[in-house]
Amino acid sequence: MDLLTIVKAGGKIVENADSLQSFLKDFARISGHKLLIHGGGRSATQLAERLGIPSQMVDGRRITDEETLKVVTMVYAGLVNKNIVAQLQALNIDAIGLTGVDMNLISAVKRPVQTIDYGFVGDVQHVNSLALKYLLDQNYLPVLAPITHNGKGVLLNTNADTIASETAKALAYDFNVRLIYCFEKKGVLSNENDENSTISTLNKEEFLQYKAAGIIHAGMIPKLENAFEAIASGVKEVIITRASDIHTGGGTFIKN
Amino acid sequence: MDLLTIVKAGGKIVENADSLQSFLKDFARISGHKLLIHGGGRSATQLAERLGIPSQMVDGRRITDEETLKVVTMVYAGLVNKNIVAQLQALNIDAIGLTGVDMNLISAVKRPVQTIDYGFVGDVQHVNSLALKYLLDQNYLPVLAPITHNGKGVLLNTNADTIASETAKALAYDFNVRLIYCFEKKGVLSNENDENSTISTLNKEEFLQYKAAGIIHAGMIPKLENAFEAIASGVKEVIITRASDIHTGGGTFIKN
Repeated sequence: MDLLTIVKAGGKIVENADSLQSFLKDFARISGHKLLIHGGGRSATQLAERLGIPSQMVDGRRITDEETLKVVTMVYAGLVNKNIVAQLQALNIDAIGLTGVDMNLISAVKRPVQTIDYGFVGDVQHVNSLALKYLLDQNYLPVLAPITHNGKGVLLNTNADTIASETAKALAYDFNVRLIYCFEKKGVLSNENDENSTISTLNKEEFLQYKAAGIIHAGMIPKLENAFEAIASGVKEVIITRASDIHTGGGTFIKN
Repeated sequence: MDLLTIVKAGGKIVENADSLQSFLKDFARISGHKLLIHGGGRSATQLAERLGIPSQMVDGRRITDEETLKVVTMVYAGLVNKNIVAQLQALNIDAIGLTGVDMNLISAVKRPVQTIDYGFVGDVQHVNSLALKYLLDQNYLPVLAPITHNGKGVLLNTNADTIASETAKALAYDFNVRLIYCFEKKGVLSNENDENSTISTLNKEEFLQYKAAGIIHAGMIPKLENAFEAIASGVKEVIITRASDIHTGGGTFIKN
């Protein structure tokens, strides 16, 4: 099976022109098939602010009312996605910017209301790996914005980390998948005040210990849960690392 | 050669939820390969207003400074495009929403400054008919937002009527292309105060006469220039009609 590298790049990387350019140059150098998933939360928050729409976050997830859904659709699928694709095209990489609604790539269900009503937030139900494989086989580079749909005409805001792990899982039947979560830190840290305390490998048991001790907390928890789900479902390698380190072998390697 | 129907739907049709739904139902009934190109100018103007960005139009073309480029990218490629694709998917049509930057579909050059500096406005240079044919052959329905790029990482705002005619011309080598410009009137009118004065067929000579007499004026002139260019370049049929009339045989038929 061919190698496929799936990279999730967080907002801080893709929303700044300089860091985006430097990241994409590194990303372009990855050999073999590639797929990119991006965020854009900071730009969405900024646009919402300018429009007088309050941004409400619960555990790092955005409460998405109708107005907020318009904002994230504009920012993720429009502004951020098309700028990334334009930069990649300038690097002679034939990228194609897509959301989960295009080619029916990712269908989702509106998250059921339990204690919190997240609004138009989607939980991934199915990834159309056939359509993605078809693009990859033709050497297109899919760039996915974190918007999905329910199949009935409703767009849904969906966590980009989850899209990355679900996409990696779905494509693990057709490719040897490496999944790299890029963010601003060197990896999962054992001391969040020490940039050099990267945990080099992390298995589920260790994760639960760090979590119980409060060392791993907040937004890192769902990110790692996604990572463990991917590695348990046929994805060959899952790495959490700094964007500038994707070629250095640094970061935290997730173990089954 | 297979039949391909290319429809350009103006802003008034696609920006209102009711008219969009009714239009897409009619559109879905067109048999054979289809391609949709949409506008979205009214939503762009509204968003710009809410953000305090002045909208400047010259001869129906938007002066596009850096902030305005962000607005049109968000509205056309994000909000309008993804809503159309979601509605089509709900009608079981496998649509894919794209701009000219995706798959390098439409490259353009920034319009040279003569008397007016249009800013980030693109004049179409090349349509990648191979990539579009490839999607059409797989029975995907491309939905194009009027954003192109210069190949050097810069997005460009591009007139949707022009994208429609350029795409039709490029695909005329591979398909029998019908190009339908849908808007809110029944066709080209010989008396703009009389909705029933539709000119049923219009050739270039008649157009120039109507234009000289001031009967055809303003935004209809560039639209018709695009239409005549298409019919002169191998496109089999060019029709200007009301969205609700795409199955009735009404409207103005452009003749070579």
